[in-house]
Amino acid sequence: MKTVSETASFGGTQGVYAHQSSVCACEMTFGLYLPPAAAYGPVPVLWYLSGLTCTHENAMTKAGAQGWAAEHGLALVFPDTSPRGDDVADDEAFDLGKGAGFYVNATEKPWAPHYRMWDYIAQELPDLVFDAFPLDREMQAITGHSMGGHGALTLAMTYPDRFSSVSAFSPICNPVDSEWGIKQLGAYLGDDREAWSAHDSSLLMAERGFDGPVLCDTGTKDQFADRLKPETLAAAMAARRQHGAFRMQPGYDHSYFFVASFMEEHVAFHAGAMGLA
Amino acid sequence: MKTVSETASFGGTQGVYAHQSSVCACEMTFGLYLPPAAAYGPVPVLWYLSGLTCTHENAMTKAGAQGWAAEHGLALVFPDTSPRGDDVADDEAFDLGKGAGFYVNATEKPWAPHYRMWDYIAQELPDLVFDAFPLDREMQAITGHSMGGHGALTLAMTYPDRFSSVSAFSPICNPVDSEWGIKQLGAYLGDDREAWSAHDSSLLMAERGFDGPVLCDTGTKDQFADRLKPETLAAAMAARRQHGAFRMQPGYDHSYFFVASFMEEHVAFHAGAMGLA
Repeated sequence: MKTVSETASFGGTQGVYAHQSSVCACEMTFGLYLPPAAAYGPVPVLWYLSGLTCTHENAMTKAGAQGWAAEHGLALVFPDTSPRGDDVADDEAFDLGKGAGFYVNATEKPWAPHYRMWDYIAQELPDLVFDAFPLDREMQAITGHSMGGHGALTLAMTYPDRFSSVSAFSPICNPVDSEWGIKQLGAYLGDDREAWSAHDSSLLMAERGFDGPVLCDTGTKDQFADRLKPETLAAAMAARRQHGAFRMQPGYDHSYFFVASFMEEHVAFHAGAMGLA
Repeated sequence: MKTVSETASFGGTQGVYAHQSSVCACEMTFGLYLPPAAAYGPVPVLWYLSGLTCTHENAMTKAGAQGWAAEHGLALVFPDTSPRGDDVADDEAFDLGKGAGFYVNATEKPWAPHYRMWDYIAQELPDLVFDAFPLDREMQAITGHSMGGHGALTLAMTYPDRFSSVSAFSPICNPVDSEWGIKQLGAYLGDDREAWSAHDSSLLMAERGFDGPVLCDTGTKDQFADRLKPETLAAAMAARRQHGAFRMQPGYDHSYFFVASFMEEHVAFHAGAMGLA
């Protein structure tokens, strides 16, 4: 692992690091924020998964999370959203290929050799960061935006013992039945819709739910709401009697202006679920 | 109108009043809390509609609303849930007849002569209290519990210009498709399902929504959740991109212990929507 940069931020350190990923078979870059409390011992971790077109950098620079993480003593991890490099398959569309890994392990050509973002986020990157930084593996939470909200919700429900809480900003809620999902799950996973189901947060919510609290925020003016299908997850949460809140925030769109507006509440939500508030 | 009782409460006055209702053709009783601020001029009003089996008294004594209303300078009105008296039709079941008016105007025998709770709450009682008490007709919000949450939501969406905000505790969300609804709407309104639709908050949400914010809380351990159908309203709110929050609160049941636990947040929510927070 090499250090790309380290920058003081709210009394802690915002780092960017690169490493050779065996899972994705390419070099991968991630951001990691250590709060001031990390100087005194391992700190809890909030994972932040980003959306379509993003790298590790967007949320790191635009979500305004570091100040709140510092206040609550949380570390933040900002992974990339796909494999990278000249020999990695891509597509002309912004919503397939690079920047659009969708947090799945591709089984289909030409994606299978590199597009393994599920295993990267679930296994390889945790092993790396818990080994290299003062982070408490027993205290984890996860959030994300749009495609990253989808990733956060599906990972949390698949690994409920790992995460105290899960939240999402304008998540893709029902990819098996959306323009944002059918295309990508079909490309990466093929025609087997059973395989898709493991990556649909509404279906997972209906099937198993989540042990901890769930917080979802979506803007009422989200320009992609028809693709996000918030109503499907909202219904699944309520039908399951899932501890949590599904909120529609008035006037907000899909942008990081929205994410930043509610970041304080999301960080506080996770800190509270960890007993830190 | 006669004064049944007036009791000091959080610096203001909790009153109970009775009057001859022309709409319900019987004597009706209601509770009304005036905060300390009412000594200085008209104050905003939060209507609280109660659930099955309740009178004007349950929420007045068990919801813990007066302290928060005093803090925000709001009045509270606690209407009864049905017509009363020996000549009023009733049923042996707890969920039909007295204590179960369902906030509709009955058209069917034997209910039609007295069971006109919609008009009572929407017209007669407002006219009475705005005339008799220092209340600001331009500043109104509405909430309720269970059957009363159903009433609050349906009234708010029918009279959007009247209410700045609406909230509900464990509301009956989809009566046209629930054991709590089919029986009562059938009895009071007859077989015309078109008439039922005007009293279903999920259908109204899908059809028209609400101009202001909406807050709903339901306990994850609500023993009547299968009859409340929270998933239907949650889906309708999200599908409409309705400004609001639909929350499932962990471990809470259907009781007033639940209502009281979240009353502070509901009163603050309404005060905020009125610009008082």
